[in-house]
Amino acid sequence: MAEETSPLKVALLGAGVVGSQVARILSQEAESLRQRIGRPLELVGIGVRRLDVERPGIDPGLFTTDVHGLVTRGDLDLVVEVIGGIEPARNLLTEAMNAGASVITANKALLAEDLARLSATAKKNGVDLYYEAAVAGAIPIIRPLRESLVGDEIRAVMGIVNGTTNYILDQMTTNHLSFDVALRQAQELGFAEADPTADIEGKDAAAKAAILAGLAFHTEVHSPEVFCEGISSVTEADIQAADQMGCVVKLLAVAKLADDDRVIVKVHPAMVPKTHPLASVSGAYNAIFVESVEAGQLMFLGQGAGGAPTASAVMGDVVTAARNRVRGTAGHLGTGYTKREVAPIGDATSRYYIRFQVEDKPGVLAKCATIFGAHRVSLQTCQQSYLEGLGRTDGFTAELNFMTHDAREQDLQDVVAALREAPFIGDSIDYMRIEGK
Amino acid sequence: MAEETSPLKVALLGAGVVGSQVARILSQEAESLRQRIGRPLELVGIGVRRLDVERPGIDPGLFTTDVHGLVTRGDLDLVVEVIGGIEPARNLLTEAMNAGASVITANKALLAEDLARLSATAKKNGVDLYYEAAVAGAIPIIRPLRESLVGDEIRAVMGIVNGTTNYILDQMTTNHLSFDVALRQAQELGFAEADPTADIEGKDAAAKAAILAGLAFHTEVHSPEVFCEGISSVTEADIQAADQMGCVVKLLAVAKLADDDRVIVKVHPAMVPKTHPLASVSGAYNAIFVESVEAGQLMFLGQGAGGAPTASAVMGDVVTAARNRVRGTAGHLGTGYTKREVAPIGDATSRYYIRFQVEDKPGVLAKCATIFGAHRVSLQTCQQSYLEGLGRTDGFTAELNFMTHDAREQDLQDVVAALREAPFIGDSIDYMRIEGK
Repeated sequence: MAEETSPLKVALLGAGVVGSQVARILSQEAESLRQRIGRPLELVGIGVRRLDVERPGIDPGLFTTDVHGLVTRGDLDLVVEVIGGIEPARNLLTEAMNAGASVITANKALLAEDLARLSATAKKNGVDLYYEAAVAGAIPIIRPLRESLVGDEIRAVMGIVNGTTNYILDQMTTNHLSFDVALRQAQELGFAEADPTADIEGKDAAAKAAILAGLAFHTEVHSPEVFCEGISSVTEADIQAADQMGCVVKLLAVAKLADDDRVIVKVHPAMVPKTHPLASVSGAYNAIFVESVEAGQLMFLGQGAGGAPTASAVMGDVVTAARNRVRGTAGHLGTGYTKREVAPIGDATSRYYIRFQVEDKPGVLAKCATIFGAHRVSLQTCQQSYLEGLGRTDGFTAELNFMTHDAREQDLQDVVAALREAPFIGDSIDYMRIEGK
Repeated sequence: MAEETSPLKVALLGAGVVGSQVARILSQEAESLRQRIGRPLELVGIGVRRLDVERPGIDPGLFTTDVHGLVTRGDLDLVVEVIGGIEPARNLLTEAMNAGASVITANKALLAEDLARLSATAKKNGVDLYYEAAVAGAIPIIRPLRESLVGDEIRAVMGIVNGTTNYILDQMTTNHLSFDVALRQAQELGFAEADPTADIEGKDAAAKAAILAGLAFHTEVHSPEVFCEGISSVTEADIQAADQMGCVVKLLAVAKLADDDRVIVKVHPAMVPKTHPLASVSGAYNAIFVESVEAGQLMFLGQGAGGAPTASAVMGDVVTAARNRVRGTAGHLGTGYTKREVAPIGDATSRYYIRFQVEDKPGVLAKCATIFGAHRVSLQTCQQSYLEGLGRTDGFTAELNFMTHDAREQDLQDVVAALREAPFIGDSIDYMRIEGK
């Protein structure tokens, strides 16, 4: 049989920050891509919402607003989707696969909602569905979870998967900025969007946590099942308290397997010991820390966002899907065979830091400790300090700082509720989860 | 078509530290492996050199010394080779592939000698050849290089890929031990072999460097092409000097693409700035740092050796190869299309640290600086200190410490040779390469 040398036809959906980089690489690296794949790639069209936008360096003849027509033209080998959002992306990817194309997507929101159905569509059509760029940008994490660690049992995945919040927390820690000032700085530098809600409130990280949890534990996890708490209420006092305890504050996406085989999946600010590999991940970098039974601890570090890094991950998938196509096959889609249940957040366990002010009277510490004990929360450390010099006039002149042993989230919440009722305790009760040893 | 449910037949070659763990996981995780693959795996035989060895927990009926007969029985789906060394491993793997089995190997020495030929044999037979465990144990690095980063252009790979030497250098740094004491301690703790030569002299790391360089740059690289310098001549003075310069000493495996498109591949102790991600990789951990055009900087961290971690990597390959078999396909074997030349070590460039003693007389510093300039080596920093208080009587009572800008290795060697000829310079001239910014 003569070797097939005709080009593989590629359609690109979206020409924004990532899409424009994908188009550039497809053109600039055409020859090395051809050698790696065995056949050339031909970009046959770019689906966009509007044509009246300046997009320098890309052949204007490629753009079309008839995106539906583009993905259903019937001769496509690969469709790369970098438009984001649920619709029309879901519909376009489904149509593309039904028309026989393998698809590559960076769409975390869609995957966190509908990965199982998209996988089923890929399987039915014998095509590939790859999405390395959807989590942690350039960092290879999807393929390691899907393939490299598939012979092992993953126990926990903890990630710094949002560069915006990592940058803000970093600035609060290093330069002692308030949250508001650090956010404004991040916006001025382009590290945060004009509307930063999805990042700040942890929604972006929650979608990634859902994808990671599903892959790690061979089950289906959806965004709404992820407990989610953002960083907007992290104060300078929290950052200082963390520092005094030998920790830094990070927004973590956490997926753990509980002892009863249920899945814990959550996003929240956490104190991380400075000696933990995740603690030194600074600025706009992302990192994923994995604990498995056989391999032990692993960490993957790299740039989590940006056009070129994300395009690197997209292009890895493009080459892999194209090689599969050349050989007339498709990659394995992973499995969701375990049907594990997602546990309610009340059943999650971690250590906690908790801080509040009390009346400086005999017996107060004992009463506080009794409240913890009554809710099965065991204390690891306790520190009392005096606030009189700070000019407090509300009578709550002593401060207590506790660190607990591993405790159930619900038990800790019950402790906080009980502390709020106690007349000898001030109004402000601050606590934070501690992750990592 | 009814779904095939008969087992995939697996043969294991070797039942040592890694092999015994592979056998344990195959038995212990049989059910989850079946669910991930779609068909059960059946361990049909374990090839060993001797039968009179106690191997608890493994069915004694599986062992055979007729390893040739085992791999050629004709009905094998997968052969896992963890015996190491060139022969008989090469012959057995070749026979296994010719008999139609996909092969998984952790054999760095063999791959660094013969990867191209083994790949050709795999391709001819339409079977898989996977070797994630051959480099950096549990860390997924082969698959990321072969697939995740295959749409990008890698510029450099730098790795801490030998746990023994990393442990020894760590002890020398942290506990101020001499090389000899640190080595003895590593042997007592089981972190170093009774004959540690391959680790200490960098040969183990050189094989891994060859494999990494070949994958990163799509070419063939063999062990003998790797410049190799071990750690046995690293002194406490070197470690201290590194510390004073804000660096730590690490044994690095380095593969870089030079400006003229040739490949630099080398193993040597190097000073690494403490702010570099590789600097904090301590103890028996391994890490691979990758720089690519689009993705930027990436790092992969994890346990680089040990039975269970290495078995984790082997099992990931086993599941992937088994899934391919179930679907009647084989994975892509990577490409060596670039035919890039390996540059001689004299053409490698890096920054250098260099230290020697001089006569404390006017004009000596100028003469030294002139020697550097005459060989095109540009100086970045210079520090002079006095040794008189240390009771020196040889007349060389001043010490000079230089750090250079990027310089060619050959130019630096010429500088060292010229310095040795100079009558105003003492006998001991120490230098070390500096890698990482």
